[in-house]
Amino acid sequence: MTVVAVCQLAPVLGDLDGNRTRAAAAVEDAAAAGAHIVVLPELCSSGYAVASVDEARALAEPADGTTTTQWRALAARLGTTIIGGFCECGDGGAVHNSAALVDPDGVRAVYRKAYLWDREIGVFTRGDTRPPVIETRFGRIGVLILYDMRFPEWVRVAADAGADLIAAPTSWPAEPRPPGERPAEVVRVQAMASMHRVFVAVADRYGSERDIDWVGGSVIVAPNGFPLAGPVAAEAANEPAILLADCDLAQARDKRIGPRNDVVADRRHDLPS
Amino acid sequence: MTVVAVCQLAPVLGDLDGNRTRAAAAVEDAAAAGAHIVVLPELCSSGYAVASVDEARALAEPADGTTTTQWRALAARLGTTIIGGFCECGDGGAVHNSAALVDPDGVRAVYRKAYLWDREIGVFTRGDTRPPVIETRFGRIGVLILYDMRFPEWVRVAADAGADLIAAPTSWPAEPRPPGERPAEVVRVQAMASMHRVFVAVADRYGSERDIDWVGGSVIVAPNGFPLAGPVAAEAANEPAILLADCDLAQARDKRIGPRNDVVADRRHDLPS
Repeated sequence: MTVVAVCQLAPVLGDLDGNRTRAAAAVEDAAAAGAHIVVLPELCSSGYAVASVDEARALAEPADGTTTTQWRALAARLGTTIIGGFCECGDGGAVHNSAALVDPDGVRAVYRKAYLWDREIGVFTRGDTRPPVIETRFGRIGVLILYDMRFPEWVRVAADAGADLIAAPTSWPAEPRPPGERPAEVVRVQAMASMHRVFVAVADRYGSERDIDWVGGSVIVAPNGFPLAGPVAAEAANEPAILLADCDLAQARDKRIGPRNDVVADRRHDLPS
Repeated sequence: MTVVAVCQLAPVLGDLDGNRTRAAAAVEDAAAAGAHIVVLPELCSSGYAVASVDEARALAEPADGTTTTQWRALAARLGTTIIGGFCECGDGGAVHNSAALVDPDGVRAVYRKAYLWDREIGVFTRGDTRPPVIETRFGRIGVLILYDMRFPEWVRVAADAGADLIAAPTSWPAEPRPPGERPAEVVRVQAMASMHRVFVAVADRYGSERDIDWVGGSVIVAPNGFPLAGPVAAEAANEPAILLADCDLAQARDKRIGPRNDVVADRRHDLPS
């Protein structure tokens, strides 16, 4: 059984050192609680709500920069796999909203968010390559970031590449919802997990940043679409949290949903689109 | 404002006359309550759990048969649009799990379920053509049936064709779920509505048939992914119900989800698949 953890944190915009320290402490705490795989929020070293390219550049670092170097050391010492978001400096002054997958062998993948949300447009340069799906000692882990997950065809790319678990650093802005309803973002993640029969682990942030309030909707969902951990109740969503779930990741390789049905085998490539 | 109704019924396998009478009564009741669009369950004239092609053939009728003729008369008299499932006899002895869209102008479309569930395989011949999206006096209505909705690429075909409302006759078999959780089928419908920013109206059945128990998960969902009516609580899911919701179907033509984002415009056709 693999223990997956998602860390709900509140990165502070611009506070690189403080954010790194808080993320490292969360990884330590998760590992102490038994986590093999730890997911951190989107842009968790820089903070999310950058307002300009210049501001983003000042917080950006390369794929082998301070943040991922710290994660490498943590991963090696704790034996964990870490997936977290950081602000990446790319070629020619471009900045990317990226996520790294780091394990004791090093930085295994860096993914650049392909679908940009709101004010990310005009700040970040979107990615053009498939979400990575990395064979780790615990199973195959795919990486997506927030708004990417709204596009079922992009989630399918990760699922088709064999992801057992999709790990998603996220910053979900809060939107109005009827009392008692889960955030629509969580509902979509549940549906995504069940449609592809994969585990999904989302690390969301909480709190407020500039004029944005966050959902605090971190969740770990099983291939049947039901949460194994989270989301925390709305009353508690504005606090740090480490959610853990025992996941038998091999379950994600069984796409059957009944004696005669299989969500992959039943796809029809002969139909018009 | 358009009033949409979904009728949760319990068709009795093989009781064509009784099923038609109960469906007609439900349409009358829904119309009396103000419904402009009425959705009935899957295979609602024949019953669902047919066990062989021969049994299905004995219950099948053409697209202009007794059931749709009755719906035409009801639609004309009540001024409603009716979407309901029936067992259709096709060419060469084939039978189809079909749904008709009927309005005061007649039978506007017949759709044959493209994705077959469990024992439908070997009984029904699956459809090969796109879900219809029909311009009605109330808006554009797309038609899908149950397992079709598990495939996001097929739902997208209906959304891309301009559906304001996807009407889905359904028979959801009950599956284990954690206490307090909505059926995963309902969660997927919520996600589907929010991903495409369309209304979705699902008429499910209730009760048991042969060895199958049904969810009773009828629901009407808004483009934001939240239910406008239903699903009924688990304690009440084994009873007939007519759920109604006021739907401003024009909302489904606005695909924006923020000042800079739009679920259609943001799709990326340049990405690898």
